[in-house]
Amino acid sequence: MAEDILDLQDHCVELLKERGVTLEEIADCARYLQADYHVDLTTDELLDSVRAVLSKREVQYAIMTGIALDKAAEEGKLDDSYLIELMMKDAPLFGADEVLAYGICNTYGSIALTNFGFIDKRKYGIIRRLNRAGKNTGKCNTFIDDIVGAVAAAAASRFAHRWTRDVEDDDDK
Amino acid sequence: MAEDILDLQDHCVELLKERGVTLEEIADCARYLQADYHVDLTTDELLDSVRAVLSKREVQYAIMTGIALDKAAEEGKLDDSYLIELMMKDAPLFGADEVLAYGICNTYGSIALTNFGFIDKRKYGIIRRLNRAGKNTGKCNTFIDDIVGAVAAAAASRFAHRWTRDVEDDDDK
Amino acid sequence: MAEDILDLQDHCVELLKERGVTLEEIADCARYLQADYHVDLTTDELLDSVRAVLSKREVQYAIMTGIALDKAAEEGKLDDSYLIELMMKDAPLFGADEVLAYGICNTYGSIALTNFGFIDKRKYGIIRRLNRAGKNTGKCNTFIDDIVGAVAAAAASRFAHRWTRDVEDDDDK
Amino acid sequence: MAEDILDLQDHCVELLKERGVTLEEIADCARYLQADYHVDLTTDELLDSVRAVLSKREVQYAIMTGIALDKAAEEGKLDDSYLIELMMKDAPLFGADEVLAYGICNTYGSIALTNFGFIDKRKYGIIRRLNRAGKNTGKCNTFIDDIVGAVAAAAASRFAHRWTRDVEDDDDK
Repeated sequence: MAEDILDLQDHCVELLKERGVTLEEIADCARYLQADYHVDLTTDELLDSVRAVLSKREVQYAIMTGIALDKAAEEGKLDDSYLIELMMKDAPLFGADEVLAYGICNTYGSIALTNFGFIDKRKYGIIRRLNRAGKNTGKCNTFIDDIVGAVAAAAASRFAHRWTRDVEDDDDK
Repeated sequence: MAEDILDLQDHCVELLKERGVTLEEIADCARYLQADYHVDLTTDELLDSVRAVLSKREVQYAIMTGIALDKAAEEGKLDDSYLIELMMKDAPLFGADEVLAYGICNTYGSIALTNFGFIDKRKYGIIRRLNRAGKNTGKCNTFIDDIVGAVAAAAASRFAHRWTRDVEDDDDK
Repeated sequence: MAEDILDLQDHCVELLKERGVTLEEIADCARYLQADYHVDLTTDELLDSVRAVLSKREVQYAIMTGIALDKAAEEGKLDDSYLIELMMKDAPLFGADEVLAYGICNTYGSIALTNFGFIDKRKYGIIRRLNRAGKNTGKCNTFIDDIVGAVAAAAASRFAHRWTRDVEDDDDK
Repeated sequence: MAEDILDLQDHCVELLKERGVTLEEIADCARYLQADYHVDLTTDELLDSVRAVLSKREVQYAIMTGIALDKAAEEGKLDDSYLIELMMKDAPLFGADEVLAYGICNTYGSIALTNFGFIDKRKYGIIRRLNRAGKNTGKCNTFIDDIVGAVAAAAASRFAHRWTRDVEDDDDK
């Protein structure tokens, strides 16, 4: 049933995998975003945050919508040739992909948005691979690279908020 | 060519019409949003603002993306049965439609967002008709009702900003 | 210490009280926003959601910033006579108050923003009282009415998301 | 009079100058953000965009609010010692400054937000100087560095949108 939360999370993990994205690669992007503050952080330590982000319904809906658009564009199933053209070439000023990504970031506060802007410009790791693969082939990765960036940015932001809080808790004792 | 601004505006007007929405109906929603401040405003006076909103590329991309999603969902062309189910029943907590709409509102500032929230809850005029038609039939209006609300909210906000400015200009003389 | 989470929540509850706002009044606004969906909901049932919203750091910072601005404006302590004038008359197109409020709403997703837009226009309950008191006296309530609306909108949205989830959980059994 | 648009723009330019920021320095940040796409762009070519951004009322209000907060904090005029402490040390997870900055970016669409995230992390030019000066002295630059980043990001985004359009116009002939 579509509303079942656990199922939708599994469904999104499956959709990401099918499009060539693992949770470890997203966690690696999140780690990259935190590297300035925590030099020796491992990807594993960020996997929990990635999973927590993916458990939010708002995030799941954005992932499903974005990936469905990418797939429909590359299969020519969208009834709008202008839109297909824009999406297939990942037109730099097409912004609907970023708008959907902000919907993910927003639920983790203002720091997540800043993180997203940075990794979207730097195109680290899997984001770079998705971006390149979406420009030279019949593949459309217009939405998914921003979605991956947004989930990583949100996970990094969640980690930063929790880490600070724990340190404080320790200080209080 | 996809990047041609004027063409894309015509294209969007055509897409809206095809889905049963005229610019006059959007202008009527904008007028409704301004009615508290200007009792005797006519729909005609807001048509210019609606057209100005539709000339923005960011707005055009959001309209194209939202309408393409609605059409693909109702034709069963999205490769995600969960997403199609959510969209066909216009699930109340599915928020990707509002997120895309905020992309339109945001370009006209914070007042536009407030206007959108109000008309989205009140479902005035064409928004109510779209919303109802999308719930009882094989039609999918999940994205278009929010798009129409956002364009109306943006147009009302643009009008409010300009009207105040003109009055001031007159005062200055 | 400023970073202590629990303390900051108490601090914000205190600030709100000092400006004439109780958590019960915020919960009543949240109840109003959910009344269409749950006729017999009580304010008490929404108090938990209000408290959960107030436990978020992002929300606490917005509350502190907004209330400090209102107080500084009414005490003439802002070194900008233009800004004081705008804030003291709660100029309708001054939008920094809504922008700060969106920071609160955003962390609860797109539904929270729509809820905020609605209650900001309808000015229900304590929001109406704050708004009026801020227009006729030497009091400045420019930021606090939007903050209260945003916390109520976020709490209503949190409740809606949880309620749906619980029902689903029951369905799953 | 507070509502006079031209006056408010002059007022904001004055406020920025008083806090050590020139329009040329903001234009240089905007140029930096466009350097990947236009290698030989000069700061002068972006000054017009900076001025256009500063002519928007929404932007003016955000600038006035942010600078008033910085000044009131460093002069100890805010009636909230927690908030003053957070602002004086520019606490990394204090997000009200970014939220206000997004209000500026949003009016120039999704690309502006991405630009902001990037320059906020990279802290180029005047942004770096403001950030450093706000951490080691009795100076508070918590809001102004984000405001400058947001105006630069908006100006770069405006330039990108216009540049593409002009090229297209030329192509059409």
